Amino acid sequence: LGIEEDDFPHTGSVTSALPIPGIASVAASTNHAVKLSNWLKKDPHLQLYIENDCKMLPEVLSYNVVAEVKGNAFPKSIILAGAHLDSWDMGHGAHDDGAGVVQSIEVMRIFRALGIKPRNTLRIVLFMNEENGMRGAYEYARIVGKGHERHVVALESDAGGFSPRGFRINAGEAQLEAIQSWAPLFQPYLMHHLDAGFSGADIGPLKEFDVPLIGLYVDPQRYYGYHHTAADTFDKVNRRELHMGAAAMASLLFLIDKYGLPEEQVLLSE
Amino acid sequence: LGIEEDDFPHTGSVTSALPIPGIASVAASTNHAVKLSNWLKKDPHLQLYIENDCKMLPEVLSYNVVAEVKGNAFPKSIILAGAHLDSWDMGHGAHDDGAGVVQSIEVMRIFRALGIKPRNTLRIVLFMNEENGMRGAYEYARIVGKGHERHVVALESDAGGFSPRGFRINAGEAQLEAIQSWAPLFQPYLMHHLDAGFSGADIGPLKEFDVPLIGLYVDPQRYYGYHHTAADTFDKVNRRELHMGAAAMASLLFLIDKYGLPEEQVLLSE
Repeated sequence: LGIEEDDFPHTGSVTSALPIPGIASVAASTNHAVKLSNWLKKDPHLQLYIENDCKMLPEVLSYNVVAEVKGNAFPKSIILAGAHLDSWDMGHGAHDDGAGVVQSIEVMRIFRALGIKPRNTLRIVLFMNEENGMRGAYEYARIVGKGHERHVVALESDAGGFSPRGFRINAGEAQLEAIQSWAPLFQPYLMHHLDAGFSGADIGPLKEFDVPLIGLYVDPQRYYGYHHTAADTFDKVNRRELHMGAAAMASLLFLIDKYGLPEEQVLLSE
Repeated sequence: LGIEEDDFPHTGSVTSALPIPGIASVAASTNHAVKLSNWLKKDPHLQLYIENDCKMLPEVLSYNVVAEVKGNAFPKSIILAGAHLDSWDMGHGAHDDGAGVVQSIEVMRIFRALGIKPRNTLRIVLFMNEENGMRGAYEYARIVGKGHERHVVALESDAGGFSPRGFRINAGEAQLEAIQSWAPLFQPYLMHHLDAGFSGADIGPLKEFDVPLIGLYVDPQRYYGYHHTAADTFDKVNRRELHMGAAAMASLLFLIDKYGLPEEQVLLSE
């Protein structure tokens, strides 16, 4: 097996990998999958009964949480840092995405603690309902579409609170190059990746407004041991790694706020 | 405080930072140091009584553990991978240096599993007594000095079983450049550091024989939360990170075994 051998099934939205209707799909842990496989080897005619009480509950009203520090030069220009508030409730949702939530809040605290008055408005958005339909993300984008604000950049942390290795950038070529020109500022902190790539689910809908999208890229080794499982608990988060990710986010937004990014159409491929 | 706030004092060899004889030094946890500091703020005339029963026990006989696969071209040329067997016994010594021990063993397993017959002799050395005088390291070097073997390279893992970020190399300039020429082979695995630097304590005494010394360089954020404390336990080791470090070690030794390193005097500065 490639990754963790444990008893934690990874929940989430499970759909059948087979294009055959009527075949149910459930998540099993790696250990349980091995057990099932061994049973099947012993008895190819094994019959298995699985009871599952998953269901979709009625819709309820919930909210994104938004905070901002007004820009002192361009208050209608937004530099956004965000993450998602909701989680699968088997564990604490500590890495997915409690870590991103506190890092986004920490970005604002860092700006205030250092006395940085952003030129653009620094807005922290904690998106609701990422895991189950991205309603908060779509609603935020809908409001942006109606308004008169311009988003200079949107930055998301949703890959866990692990040691930062850089950023994944979904932006125009000149914007990507501008960010990559800051590589020497990040390398001393062992962040070597300012690569084109997937940014984050919640900020994704802002692509239609040509907003440069950036995701915090962290050490990816441990995430899928915890993701969507009962093991995604607070004790799995290392404070120092969490802090470094927040500091990296604040640093990048500081640079973008101060020096700007070239304006251009964003590449839509992810 | 910079790093972990916890109740774990970091043991080890504690000596006074003050050049005044008769002032005892003990290790205190960060939380306990804060508590002491707060007490002192309340009462600058605070008197504190600390009882400490540390002592040096008599010497006992112990051993390095050595295993090897004979080289099929140059059996008296050694490529060495190693770590240290002993640990401070407050915890398990899981990261310091249980991780390095199993990674060194894993290097040999990887060579065998892949059917690699090394040209030079692959030798795994598990050094005894690193923490308390490096007797195993000095004894190994003493025997090397008496023998007729040549060490092509010595590689140590003693920085914890964390996600590998590269290697720290203490070697001659041409040797360093030869290793750095392999950077493109390591970068896809997020290993960007093939830098000059400190290699490892146990292989250090081999410098006098101009052996190129290399240390596995891993993500350094978590190590000093566990190092020499009761928190350095097995559950803090992530299997995937541990495996990646061992794979990195095996890969580098494979390259050195296959392509060799230029022969030159090793730089002695670390």
